[in-house]
Amino acid sequence: MSGRYVFDFDEPAEGGKGLLGGKGAGLAEMTALGIPVPAGFTITTDASRDYLEAKELPEGLEAEIDEHLTALEERTGKGFGDPDDPLLVSVRSGAAVSMPGMMDTILNLGLNDDSVEGLAETTGNERFAQDSYRRLIQMYGEVVDGIDADNFERALAELKKQRGAQQDVDLSAGDLEQLVSNFKELYEQETGSSFPQDAREQLSRAVRAVFDSWDNPRAQVYRRAHHIPDDLGTAVNVVQMVFGNKGGRSGTGVAFTRDPSTGEAGLYGEFLANAQGEDVVAGIRTPQPLQEMKERLPEAFEQLLDTMRRLEEHYRDMQDIEFTVEDDRLYLLQTRSAKRTAAAALKAAVEMVDEGLISREDAVARIDPAQLDQLLHPMLDPNADYEIAAKGLNASPGAASGKIVLDADTAAQQGETEPVILVGWETSPDDIHGMIAAQGILTAHGGMTSHAAVVARGMGKPCVAGCEELSIDADTHSVRIGRHELAEGDVITIDGGSGIVIAGPVELVAPQINEDFETILGWADNNRRLQVRANADTPEDAAKAREFGAQGIGLCRTEHMFMADERLPIVREMIMASGEDERRDALEKLLPMQQSDFEGIFEAMAGLPVTIRLLDPPLHEFLPPLEEATDQRMRERIKSLQESNPMLGTRGCRLGLLWPEIYEMQVRAIIRAAVAVEERTGEAPLVEIMHPLVGFAEELHRLRAITIATANEESEEVEYLVGTMIELPRACIRADEIAEHADFFSFGTNDLTQTTLGFSRDDAEGKFLTRYLEDGVLERNPFETLDQSGVGDLMRVAVERGRSTREDIKMGICGEHGGEPASVAFCHGLGLDYVSCSPYRVPLARLAAAQAALAERGAAYVAAGG
Amino acid sequence: MSGRYVFDFDEPAEGGKGLLGGKGAGLAEMTALGIPVPAGFTITTDASRDYLEAKELPEGLEAEIDEHLTALEERTGKGFGDPDDPLLVSVRSGAAVSMPGMMDTILNLGLNDDSVEGLAETTGNERFAQDSYRRLIQMYGEVVDGIDADNFERALAELKKQRGAQQDVDLSAGDLEQLVSNFKELYEQETGSSFPQDAREQLSRAVRAVFDSWDNPRAQVYRRAHHIPDDLGTAVNVVQMVFGNKGGRSGTGVAFTRDPSTGEAGLYGEFLANAQGEDVVAGIRTPQPLQEMKERLPEAFEQLLDTMRRLEEHYRDMQDIEFTVEDDRLYLLQTRSAKRTAAAALKAAVEMVDEGLISREDAVARIDPAQLDQLLHPMLDPNADYEIAAKGLNASPGAASGKIVLDADTAAQQGETEPVILVGWETSPDDIHGMIAAQGILTAHGGMTSHAAVVARGMGKPCVAGCEELSIDADTHSVRIGRHELAEGDVITIDGGSGIVIAGPVELVAPQINEDFETILGWADNNRRLQVRANADTPEDAAKAREFGAQGIGLCRTEHMFMADERLPIVREMIMASGEDERRDALEKLLPMQQSDFEGIFEAMAGLPVTIRLLDPPLHEFLPPLEEATDQRMRERIKSLQESNPMLGTRGCRLGLLWPEIYEMQVRAIIRAAVAVEERTGEAPLVEIMHPLVGFAEELHRLRAITIATANEESEEVEYLVGTMIELPRACIRADEIAEHADFFSFGTNDLTQTTLGFSRDDAEGKFLTRYLEDGVLERNPFETLDQSGVGDLMRVAVERGRSTREDIKMGICGEHGGEPASVAFCHGLGLDYVSCSPYRVPLARLAAAQAALAERGAAYVAAGG
Repeated sequence: MSGRYVFDFDEPAEGGKGLLGGKGAGLAEMTALGIPVPAGFTITTDASRDYLEAKELPEGLEAEIDEHLTALEERTGKGFGDPDDPLLVSVRSGAAVSMPGMMDTILNLGLNDDSVEGLAETTGNERFAQDSYRRLIQMYGEVVDGIDADNFERALAELKKQRGAQQDVDLSAGDLEQLVSNFKELYEQETGSSFPQDAREQLSRAVRAVFDSWDNPRAQVYRRAHHIPDDLGTAVNVVQMVFGNKGGRSGTGVAFTRDPSTGEAGLYGEFLANAQGEDVVAGIRTPQPLQEMKERLPEAFEQLLDTMRRLEEHYRDMQDIEFTVEDDRLYLLQTRSAKRTAAAALKAAVEMVDEGLISREDAVARIDPAQLDQLLHPMLDPNADYEIAAKGLNASPGAASGKIVLDADTAAQQGETEPVILVGWETSPDDIHGMIAAQGILTAHGGMTSHAAVVARGMGKPCVAGCEELSIDADTHSVRIGRHELAEGDVITIDGGSGIVIAGPVELVAPQINEDFETILGWADNNRRLQVRANADTPEDAAKAREFGAQGIGLCRTEHMFMADERLPIVREMIMASGEDERRDALEKLLPMQQSDFEGIFEAMAGLPVTIRLLDPPLHEFLPPLEEATDQRMRERIKSLQESNPMLGTRGCRLGLLWPEIYEMQVRAIIRAAVAVEERTGEAPLVEIMHPLVGFAEELHRLRAITIATANEESEEVEYLVGTMIELPRACIRADEIAEHADFFSFGTNDLTQTTLGFSRDDAEGKFLTRYLEDGVLERNPFETLDQSGVGDLMRVAVERGRSTREDIKMGICGEHGGEPASVAFCHGLGLDYVSCSPYRVPLARLAAAQAALAERGAAYVAAGG
Repeated sequence: MSGRYVFDFDEPAEGGKGLLGGKGAGLAEMTALGIPVPAGFTITTDASRDYLEAKELPEGLEAEIDEHLTALEERTGKGFGDPDDPLLVSVRSGAAVSMPGMMDTILNLGLNDDSVEGLAETTGNERFAQDSYRRLIQMYGEVVDGIDADNFERALAELKKQRGAQQDVDLSAGDLEQLVSNFKELYEQETGSSFPQDAREQLSRAVRAVFDSWDNPRAQVYRRAHHIPDDLGTAVNVVQMVFGNKGGRSGTGVAFTRDPSTGEAGLYGEFLANAQGEDVVAGIRTPQPLQEMKERLPEAFEQLLDTMRRLEEHYRDMQDIEFTVEDDRLYLLQTRSAKRTAAAALKAAVEMVDEGLISREDAVARIDPAQLDQLLHPMLDPNADYEIAAKGLNASPGAASGKIVLDADTAAQQGETEPVILVGWETSPDDIHGMIAAQGILTAHGGMTSHAAVVARGMGKPCVAGCEELSIDADTHSVRIGRHELAEGDVITIDGGSGIVIAGPVELVAPQINEDFETILGWADNNRRLQVRANADTPEDAAKAREFGAQGIGLCRTEHMFMADERLPIVREMIMASGEDERRDALEKLLPMQQSDFEGIFEAMAGLPVTIRLLDPPLHEFLPPLEEATDQRMRERIKSLQESNPMLGTRGCRLGLLWPEIYEMQVRAIIRAAVAVEERTGEAPLVEIMHPLVGFAEELHRLRAITIATANEESEEVEYLVGTMIELPRACIRADEIAEHADFFSFGTNDLTQTTLGFSRDDAEGKFLTRYLEDGVLERNPFETLDQSGVGDLMRVAVERGRSTREDIKMGICGEHGGEPASVAFCHGLGLDYVSCSPYRVPLARLAAAQAALAERGAAYVAAGG
């Protein structure tokens, strides 16, 4: 395509990682820095893409390889395939995004029956030469011709047995020569051809094999899991072989510039004397701490320390390197940003700021917000031994152990004295008290946004949902989890961060909220434009949210308040009322209860805004299931409230328009609470009253009038805003008309996703949506990551049109996406005023909001030519 | 507002009907034409609007009235309130849109205790004068002071009894003087004040009363029912009284320029000698045919004929007039376009074209498409006597009588030999065979788009749905309809055009599809740009659609084919299959059946396009209800397929992606049918394969590949298009991406309305949507008339974006809106290629499409300064 497919490590190439892959770009960059790197060249990802499309090497590629190979021969003074002084190379895959272990590498290319002798000659090491050759045949056979590795392992084991050798090193040069011969025979048996003796042919086939490895199943699965696009392709690096297995002055190792577990500065790594890198990876020999190298190879060690320091300074990030020492000479084979734990990421970032290596903004920008999640919940002890009994959806992060309990009432009771896990087919609003008391929730049905999942995330409680290998027998009080038959009362452990279920207890480790974390979030707050609020329904949640840095409540759902034990009978009375008067009587009893809830929340959020959403769910959610209702009148009411698609039925503001007395009671409770709190504390709460599920301006027009009239009856002093959820496509489309009656918009992206995509979240997850994600129809779950080009485009329309009629309208998001980093960035780009998410996600959102602002500033800086 | 609130009839006023109301504009126009009209003036709708807003007469209005009253006095030579020669006036409401009988009129204003004597003197008719006065008191009392009419009727009856009078005319002048006195006493009793003697005060209060009558409950209900905006207001006409009750040379009547029932040209009307118009309306005396007038008042009659001819020529439309003859002198009191039956509208239009009065385009433009509906179905005999037992939703037009049958099987059996009405709580796809056999369907539940309603409309069969006064006792085989207890087998009659249910039989009149109808539709076809297709699932429906002028099939639903008695067991086998192989076996059996359906449809539509939608509904719709399933495996499958919101669940193309073998079978059946039909007839069908519920381009991308691969396996010769329904908001938003894989789009506005508005049609109608319409939150049912500013705006986005990536993409609509005139016009404006609707609505759609094209051309003509 570009006419240029190959770049030498010492050639400046534009395109960076995208073109050269991570490994190739690193080698080129290190070469430019003067860091010792073996010579070689990179075949670009362009070549790979063209190859994968045409299923043959692109025109001109072979010639370019020849050219660069000749240059390499000149530089090294060796000949590729030369029988006397052969040039050996490795062929290493290297995609733009690191996919460790997913693709293939072949070492020692260039060896054949003749040049193996030349190698023995020039190195004076027959054993080394034969060992190198047998490794080539094995790797080449596996990677290029797909021969099962077991064949080679068996042949090796047999020979060792014959020779009475315990370990590979016990084999002599002659033994290895025999092994080469055996391997070649094996190769011919399996492929029908003899092992290629032409070095150039070896190279060509190896390059193709690495290209092909992009599409091998494990690489595909990995990409799916990590949301890596399928069309990136991989670069191929052809690197002069350096040998860590040449003797006592040689060795190989990996090193981190800081401790990847803790982030602490200092030496961290492993070293293996007289070995090749593959030996470390294969686990054949146990490596030693890096300190050992200091004693064995002090000069190379000093050089390594210096190189690591230079690399960190250059990249201004913690590096993970591979190196080889050949006869006291250090070569770096790879450098990349080190993978690290959340805690390590935070500490390293803070320390690098202290060291003056990076700025505070850099520190903020480089923490992965999603990774922080692990710090906010208990985790399975990484050192614990356990067997996974089943896997479900990772619905709410954190791990928990407890006794199996199969109903909410028992959970509520037993949960007071010992840890329990509430296990069920699914959960309903009736189960809230049990969920509150349980350590965690495990359900067989339901997806990432099922009742169990949503409520659990809201509570910051571990939940594994949609665990298909779970079945429950309520009659015998037993459950089956995978192949385990368990009884109520048996202990299980769940990890809601990974979806794992374990039969029996597992040691947990506590959340690590530490100083580094606070420090980074402080820097984040200095850099973000988006406000971060929390979704919280109780004073306790509100307090916790504030502790995590929430700047108000973006969504206080009033229906959870209707579910409390002592209230539900009154709520049912209200629903069963035969007329408005009876209904008002029941509402009158609820009013002081709601008022006291609101007072608690206002106090917890003193000085900060609190958005209260009026009653949203269909009324049948407050009634018992039909089969449990004994009263005939109740049964009739349940039937009359039954709906084919409750998601699209009589709920949201439709309730408020059909039975205005319900919303009137709620408004009254809000205003009375505001008055009471102001009198008590001297500080007026910042009240925002929100109407759900508005689709037509006329709905909000009328509800606003009811709200204001009711509020005025209670007090003319309390100031408050009246706004609406934007959670229907029509509300987005006609945001201009709706904004005329709204002081604020809050995007309810859960419901907006459901209606825009026509995906019922209860029916999609675990069913067709799961298949869509497995099959790659969708790359991401739209209930986790905002569907930016669909739902997001409607939001953009809503923002534009809403502002067209009310320029200063306040806008936020209170769907689950409000705590998801990519979605937070999108909301920043839309120009929203705030995001609101569950209390436990507030720190993530603060960080993501700052990163979005920094990215924007970075882009502006670039655009300004800075 | 305008500074000018009053216009004389002989003053040219801009603003027409909107400003002067229909009646005022007519009087002014007739005055200008030199047609004899009483003198007078019009108070504008502006005045009414200002009054209704401020609740007081706008400033300056009284002075303007004085001014015009003085001019009227000068012109007539009489004085308003003059005791000797009083000017009498009527005050008549007249809104821009005719609302017959909805608002108020007062006659004889200007009479009081003195002027009644002057009137007796100048007319030489004491009895007439007293009669006029007592009428004033009565009407004024009722209209201005809200006195119950019964009071006056009782007083009149009492006097008649005292005097031994049979009829009003038997009362003498003295009797009437006594009645005046009694009425005045009554007035004082009821209001606490004596009857106003000041003529000017009478007038002011009368004007206010007419203004107020705009907001009386019956007017509000009427406006709601006829979608007349609430803020139009009414004009008030102050008209010099002319008297048809002055003696033998006087009279009054109404006349149509053509027969309003048949449309035939010729005299048509009624006349009453020596009477006032109110006598005709009140039904006190029975009017005579207009011919009578020829003998009694030959000169006035000739003048009337001439005037009617001139009016029709001027208005170029059939007129409905009111006239009065006073002492041989003809006065026209009103002219307006005559309300007429659909048949009359057609005939009149055709004849006016023949007479050269109007153009063909005019004829097409003036037929109300909605009215045509009545011609396509049997109707209740307008002369029949019946009592309405209950009312439900007018779900599918037409009337039917038959025996009550409570289950589909019985209906299917009994319906073969005698007319039956299928009565149930609701219907399901299982009931199709019973619905086919029944004359009509009556359900207690469900809305305008419930299963019963949709299927009935598709079949062109009468249906009353959501009849809340219906309850069914299956055990005793009896039903209650309103207060009637009926048994299965009793005859009922339903009118699906009005929603009426009648206990017992009612005479029906047959549909009138006549030559005029064909003629007008022919002219319409010459003028429209939109193609009109039909939604049809069977060869019979296809043939019927073609007969009605359909230009192809826009939606052939394949699921109805799955429901047939002999197929359902195989469909269930397919659903119950334990793996792909078993599923394929069942599908293999279905294939020839589907193929034969398609062959029949292709033959019926030879030469025209047929769009076949692949399987759409969730699979559980094909299984029995859980409580009816006895087989344990079946029960489990039903449970596993149950969904919370099936509308948003595993349906549409999601089925095709989860179980591709289903769509493969359907594609195979389509292609085989096409091959067979081409071989048999020599004509290749125009096949369009449509994938439902696509939201993501990737879905269609994959399904298109499956479709093409499967089709190619069957034949490489058959040509076909592959397209998609656009029925999700996301599909509209990302129509650009989807169009890259689609040869055509078909807007499924039923589902698009459900998702865009968040309205489940099953749950909205009869529930919150009905309340919304009653309360005026919404003006129209969005499932009947497209929500243009919401759903329509999304469609506009889809059209633009779809064409942005595929300029020549074919676009149509196949939702129920495709047969609704306003929505057809909207689709024309969007630039769609076709609309598709149920066969019975095809003629309406043809007409509506032509009208939209003519309106556009008209607008273009105006815009071009023509």
